[in-house]
Order: sequence, then C-alpha cells, then structure tokens
Amino acid sequence: MQLRSAFKVLGVLLLLLSLSMSLVLLWSLYELAVSGSPDLSVFYALGTAILLGFVAGGSLLVAGAGYQVVPGRREAFLIVSLAWFTGAGIGALPFYLWALYSGHGFHVFSDFVNCYFEAMSGLTTTGSSVLANISELPRGLLLWRAMIQWLGGLGIVVLFVAVMPMIAMDNKKIFQAETSSIGSNQDTPSLQNMAQTLWIIYAALTGCQILLMKFADPDLDWFTCITFGFSTAATAGFSVLNESAGSISVSAQWVVVLFMFLAGVNYALFYQLIKGRIASVLKNTELRAYGGTILIAIFVIALVLNKASYPSMTGEMIERPSLARAGLDAAFQVVSVHTTTGFSNVNSDAWPDIARYVLILLMFVGGCSGSTGGGIKVIRFVALFRMLAAETERAFRPNVVRPCMVGGSPLSAQQQHSIMVHILFVCALTLFSALILLLLEGSKTDLLTSFTAVLASVNNIGPGFSLVGAAQNYAWFSVPSKCLLIFLMAVGRLEVFTVFALLSRKFWRL
Amino acid sequence: MQLRSAFKVLGVLLLLLSLSMSLVLLWSLYELAVSGSPDLSVFYALGTAILLGFVAGGSLLVAGAGYQVVPGRREAFLIVSLAWFTGAGIGALPFYLWALYSGHGFHVFSDFVNCYFEAMSGLTTTGSSVLANISELPRGLLLWRAMIQWLGGLGIVVLFVAVMPMIAMDNKKIFQAETSSIGSNQDTPSLQNMAQTLWIIYAALTGCQILLMKFADPDLDWFTCITFGFSTAATAGFSVLNESAGSISVSAQWVVVLFMFLAGVNYALFYQLIKGRIASVLKNTELRAYGGTILIAIFVIALVLNKASYPSMTGEMIERPSLARAGLDAAFQVVSVHTTTGFSNVNSDAWPDIARYVLILLMFVGGCSGSTGGGIKVIRFVALFRMLAAETERAFRPNVVRPCMVGGSPLSAQQQHSIMVHILFVCALTLFSALILLLLEGSKTDLLTSFTAVLASVNNIGPGFSLVGAAQNYAWFSVPSKCLLIFLMAVGRLEVFTVFALLSRKFWRL
Repeated sequence: MQLRSAFKVLGVLLLLLSLSMSLVLLWSLYELAVSGSPDLSVFYALGTAILLGFVAGGSLLVAGAGYQVVPGRREAFLIVSLAWFTGAGIGALPFYLWALYSGHGFHVFSDFVNCYFEAMSGLTTTGSSVLANISELPRGLLLWRAMIQWLGGLGIVVLFVAVMPMIAMDNKKIFQAETSSIGSNQDTPSLQNMAQTLWIIYAALTGCQILLMKFADPDLDWFTCITFGFSTAATAGFSVLNESAGSISVSAQWVVVLFMFLAGVNYALFYQLIKGRIASVLKNTELRAYGGTILIAIFVIALVLNKASYPSMTGEMIERPSLARAGLDAAFQVVSVHTTTGFSNVNSDAWPDIARYVLILLMFVGGCSGSTGGGIKVIRFVALFRMLAAETERAFRPNVVRPCMVGGSPLSAQQQHSIMVHILFVCALTLFSALILLLLEGSKTDLLTSFTAVLASVNNIGPGFSLVGAAQNYAWFSVPSKCLLIFLMAVGRLEVFTVFALLSRKFWRL
Repeated sequence: MQLRSAFKVLGVLLLLLSLSMSLVLLWSLYELAVSGSPDLSVFYALGTAILLGFVAGGSLLVAGAGYQVVPGRREAFLIVSLAWFTGAGIGALPFYLWALYSGHGFHVFSDFVNCYFEAMSGLTTTGSSVLANISELPRGLLLWRAMIQWLGGLGIVVLFVAVMPMIAMDNKKIFQAETSSIGSNQDTPSLQNMAQTLWIIYAALTGCQILLMKFADPDLDWFTCITFGFSTAATAGFSVLNESAGSISVSAQWVVVLFMFLAGVNYALFYQLIKGRIASVLKNTELRAYGGTILIAIFVIALVLNKASYPSMTGEMIERPSLARAGLDAAFQVVSVHTTTGFSNVNSDAWPDIARYVLILLMFVGGCSGSTGGGIKVIRFVALFRMLAAETERAFRPNVVRPCMVGGSPLSAQQQHSIMVHILFVCALTLFSALILLLLEGSKTDLLTSFTAVLASVNNIGPGFSLVGAAQNYAWFSVPSKCLLIFLMAVGRLEVFTVFALLSRKFWRL
C-alpha cells in the first residue's frame, strides 16, 4: 500500500478547510466593523487554526510531492477515512482555541473531545451537538459550525456520485443502474466535470433556500437564513438558534421542509432535470418510494398529533393542534428524520409512542442514494422488499427463476448480497453499539436513549429520543461514549465498509 | 394443488389430539377418585372436546380416503400451516367449554379468542398466557395446557428434522450440512425411523427432567414436575404456578436451567451422542456458539445483578443478591430467553436496563436449529457473522474469492441468500407488527411493550417487557391485537415463509 499517496489528498483537504475558515474570518471582520463587539478571542482562534491548517496542509503536500497518486481500492478507503477523521480534527480547532482564549472559565469546548465531537458531527452531516446554549457562541464560531456541515455534505455527494463509482466500487453500481446517473454511457464526463456539476447544483439549492427563507420571513436576519441553508443542503441539522427550527415563522418552516426534502433526493435526478428528462425523473423508483413513505408517515402522525398535546421547543404546550398545525409538525419531523437532517420545530420526544415509533423506523431508512442524506438509503429498502417477495415465491416454487427487478433493471445475485449485507451490518452495528453504550454509561442512560443515540449517530441524523431527544444534547456522555459515537458517525457516513475495512488485519497485509 | 390431500393429515392430527385429550381425561378421573372434587365441568368439557375431535377427525379421514397424498412443496406448506391453525382450534375447545359449563360467571376463557390464543401459544411452544390466576384452574385443564406444548414441540422437531428435509426444502439444508444430521448418507433411515428416534429422545429428556426435579426437591408434587417437564422439553414456558418458576426450590430451578439448555440443542446431536460420536458433538459450531453466548450473557448480567435490587415473582425485593444468587437468576433468565422457553424465576422486567437489553438481544437469537427452540436460530447468526467478515474483506479485495465456511463446509451463494433473507424477514415483520400493534392499541400500550410483545410472539418466547413482562399477561390486549399475535406465533414457529407463502396470490394460482 502506498501510504504516502494519502499525503497529497489530505494536504489539499487541509488547505481547503483552512481557506474556508479564512472566509469565516473575513465575514467576522466585516461583522466586527458593523457591530463592534469587543471580544476578539474568536479571531485569534480562527487565525491560529488557519495558520496551523496551512502549515500542516502545506507540509503534507511537500511530503507527498512527486508521488503519483494511483488510488487503488485500499488506498481510496484509507484516504477517505483519514480525510474525515483529520478533517474533523482541523474543524474542531477553532472551537477549542476559542474556549482557550476567551477566558470565560470552563466551557463545554474546553474539552477537546467535545470540540472533536461537534466537528465530526458537522462534517458527517449528523448534527448532534454538545451545546446546551447555542446562541451564546460568537457568530464567527456559529458560521464555522454551519460551514463544516456544508463542506461535509458537498464532500459526500462528490465522493459517492463522482469519485467512488470511478474507482469501480461495484457495490455502488446499483445506484447507477437505478438512476442512470451522471456517469452513464451517453455522456461520460470527466471526474472534474461531474464534481463541478454537483457543486453547482448543491450551491444553487443552498442559495435558493436562503433567498426563499428571507422572502418567507423578512424578520429573519441573513445570518440565520444562510446558516439554515448550509445546514439543510447538507441534511446536517445544526441550528444557530437554541430552539432549532422552533422559533422561525410557519412559512419559513415550510421552506425548510421543502429544502430538506430536496436535499434527500439523488443528485443525479437534478442533473436529469436540468437536461430536461422530466419523465424519467418522475418514473424514478427510489424517488417514488421516498415520496410515498414520507406522505404515509405524515398522514399517520398528523392524525395522531391532531388528538394529542405536546410541548414546543421552548416547553409551552400545544394542546390538540389544528390539522394544519399538526400537519406542519408531522411534515417537519418526518422529513427531518427521513432525510437524516435532524432539525426540530417541536419537541417530538414528547409525542405519543406511535408517532415516536414511526420516526424511529424512518431513522433506519435515510435519504436517497447519491444525496447528502445518511442512513441505509431508500433504494436498499426498495430492493429488500422486492427480495423478500421473491424469496416468498421461491420458497414454494424453487425452480422458477425470476429476476429481481429494481427500477427496470434486474439485480444481480452479487448486488442482492451486498444490499442485504449492508442492511444487516448497520443493524448489527447499531444493536451492539447500543449494548456498549449501556455498559459504558451504566445507570446514567436508559434503553431508548442508548438505542436512539446510536441509531442517530450511525445514520447521521442528530437527535434521538429520551435523554438525547430534540430538546437535549450529547454533552453529558462520558468521554469513551463520545468516542464511540464519533466513530459511529464516521462509519455511518462512509457507508460502513470503508472504515471497517481498515479495522481488519487483512487490510494491512501485503 | 390437491386441496383434498390435506384432509388425511389433518384427520390424523385431530384424532391424535383427541387421543391425547383422552389421556388427560383418564388422569383427571384418577385424580377425582383420589381427591373427590365435586366440580365435574372439566370432565364435560374434555369429553365434549374429545367427541368433537373424533367426529371431525374421522370425517376428514373419510373425506380424504382413497387419496394418495403426494406432498409437493405447496401441499406441504398448506398442510403444515393448516395443522397448526386447526390444532390450536381443537386445543382451545376444552378451555372454552370448561368456562361455558363451570357456571362461574365471566372467566377469561369465556371468550374463545382467549382460548385460541392460549392454545396457539402452547402448540407453537410460545408460552404467553392470558391467565392472571393460573393455579385456580382445575388440574385437568392445566395438564391439557401443558400437554399441548409438549405435542407442539414434538411436532416441530419431527417436522424440521425429519419431514421438511425429506421434501427437499433446500433452505433447510444448511442445518444438515452443519450437523451432518440424522438424515446423512452414512445411515439413511426412513421417515418413520427418524420420527421414532426423535420422539424417544424427546420423551427421554422429558422423563429425566421429571425425575430429577422430584429428586432435587421432594416437596414438589408429581403434577408440578410433570407439567414442568412437558413445558421445558418443548421450550414453551407455561407454568402451573402463578409465580412461574419463582416458587420452586433453588436446586429445582437449576434442574430447569439444565433441561432448558438441553431443549435448545439440535436433536441430531443427541442422536450422534447415542451413536458415540462425542468428539463431533463437541466440535459442533452451533453448539459452541450457543454455549458461548449463554456463558457471556450470564457473566455480564450476573455482575450487573450483583449490585442491583429487583423483585421476586411475588414482589418481595431481592437486595444486592450474593453472586451465587445473581448467577442463578442470570442463568435462569438467559437460558430461558435464549432457548425461547420463557419461564421466569424473578421479575426480570425490573432489572437494570443493561440486563434487559441483553435479554432483548437474545430474544432474536433463539435455540439451535433442529431443536424445539424458536427464534431465528443460532446457526443463522453464526453464518451471518462469517458473511459480514467476508464482505468486509471483499470491499477492498473484490477479486479474492474465499468460500464462507460454517462448520467445516462452505455456504453456497443460495444458502447465504436464504439466511440473510430469513433474518431480514423476521426483523421487518417484527418492526412492522409492532407498528400495527401500536396503532391497534393506541395509548393503552407503549413502545417497549409493543415491540417486545411482538418479538416474544414471533420468536415463540412468551413474556416480553413492560406491560407484557414476566409478572404480566396478554389478556388486556384487544381482540384484533390478539389475532395479530396469534398469527405471529404461528408464522414464527413455522419459519416465516411457510405461512407467508400462503398469503401470496401466486401460491394459489395454477
């Protein structure tokens, strides 16, 4: 294995992150000029982090210079995993340095594990936070916190739609078969072209949302709109408000619902839409399943909520809401969980059990393939149900060979195998990690907390239920538990095998 | 499909059940002669049920006479499913008729759905009950209740070790490959010989336990020992005592632990033991995994219980028990749940969450293949973990073809497919059924209750947690919910596809 082949890519990554941080620093300077806050610690923190990032990135580039990167499969796995783990490291620096410089006494960010948790949560577009009082943070830090998510989301789309299929990850081919993706035969664009197209779509979605939110609720300041745009496009879920999305207006909430939905859609479909292939987009199996599940879930939960009472994000009770209000709350939470965004507009942890259970089921599903959404992905479940039906027939008609069709093309035996292994791996990982979390925390946690904390981390959602519910945070976990959750976020984001391969002895042999 | 081919088998089944009922009637007459209870309603109930059984069984035999039964796959599925559903029907009659004749006013058995639930729970060796006060029932009914389980357990062993492999259920071949079962090439006994061997082993295990229990605790009456023997051999879990196994002596509890463990072992291994092949038994992969899991689970739970306080079955608190006591309680519940028996010696529902979670994980696993235990079966999980490891390697070395070995022989792609589909089907069925149960019961139930009630039914365990915990019962569920649980018990017992095939339209075509 060419370990040094990783240097170049990691170097570029660190430089890019530092460059993004510089933009945040510039914006903070502009804000300082306007508002004139006397607290300069956030500038020192960002400045130091940028410096460190440029030095480290530059050194890696120099160390890796002259090396032609020929990413084989193992190199790709290593580079991608390292990218997320070191990316979170540099991303955590501003938080840690700010707590160090600000001299406020002990802050939750005085512990580097908390900073790393927050950064990894952002970069994996999970959105679970260690912060109880978010709005007390300086805006510069909040903008950086929002931006990490956006960069992480972009990284994931480029990785899974453009890079991975190019290095022949055959277990990803199912997505191409289904979506006749950007990389189909008709127009075989280069990696660069594809990455460019994806990044333009991504930026366009973010921009549209920012403008529409400002339009829907002119009282919102641009800062809130921009951070919501970053967070939504990445299906991440960090908010700059203590009430998540609970304190923005109803019309702005609907805008967020719309863009959360769009963020969970396969990017190849946006590309097809641009090319004018509307019919093929509407016929897309995964999109239909995604939309259908969301509608059914909203319908069920809205009916349940209509007769229930539950608290808003600030704790005031909403008593037997109108169907319109119940519909909004149901739609917001269903789309938020289904796309693995993790915003909350009300405290869904206090909903009736049937509504909470539907949300738990949706936590497994996640967004569409080729989107920024996490989770197991809709297409795998579509394929699974087809396989279960086929196996039921095979049980009494073993000699009838019928191809298992998904989206008009048959699934090969190998694809079926990969899909099932993937689902089972995620389930097994979730069940075992919840056990470890219970062992680590003892009586400080309970069944529902441990299970949903793990579920929300592996599937990159953010909040779970009970002690990690919509109005809670992850700061109270012990350091080993936080490390476990950080690991799970990365594992889930990189579709399990990428990271788990690195843990096998055979990976490092030869 | 030859629908009439089912008549003969069902006729024989009804006659056998009526014959068994006659034995219970005879025993009751003997008891009457000794004790002289004036309540004769149980005799009338048994008598009427026997009469109905003989008439119905005889009619079916006559109707099916002259028909050569050639069980194809579909016929086998139909016959097996019908056997369990009609068997539960005739099994429920004595309960219903007794409530009708006894004139006690309303009893839980005055509702036929409750009787059918109890009978299906027995016949599928589940052991979940609608009874709150068990010991008030006449002993004749209690003996019948115990006997249904024993007959159900025997039926399952004969079905899955002898009958199913003979009609070439290739998804069962994995079990043969693993255990080089009774039907291996060296000695190919006829169906009749195999059934005979199995039934002798089964009866011998039951007999040994009855004697050992009486020996371990001479204060126990023979009736209690016999019913415990019936219930344990079948891994069913009905008790004749209100405290389940909580009121028998410690030594008798250890005897029950031992025989629950044995009941979860593949019957082919007992056969090999008789043939003197001890080494091959000890090398058996499934047995090792089964024993290993049990030991680890006991170890973890015993340590947790050692520092905890929890109530006995009668509600008295056990405060920080000794390690010996904690070890017994842990061993009892772990083996009870792992083998899907479902006895309780203490109220495990009040255990710390970590202990309850370990039990929930074990609920999925179940006994070994070819045992009376329900659940997904140990061997499928052994195979699953091998497949997950293989897939992790395949992710970075797609060209290395390495057979997935289980128990010394490679799993074919088709076997791997079947195993994964089976596990995923059970998981999907559990998750969806829990949703339906929540919808049916509304606020009367909660998440943990619904989920574990379904889990305990599909895997034929019996008690779950919360409102269906060790000290609770299933009587409070509404009729639709009970019907769902009855269906799930049958589905789980017959390894899902047998019953689900009947629900597919394609099954009935042609």
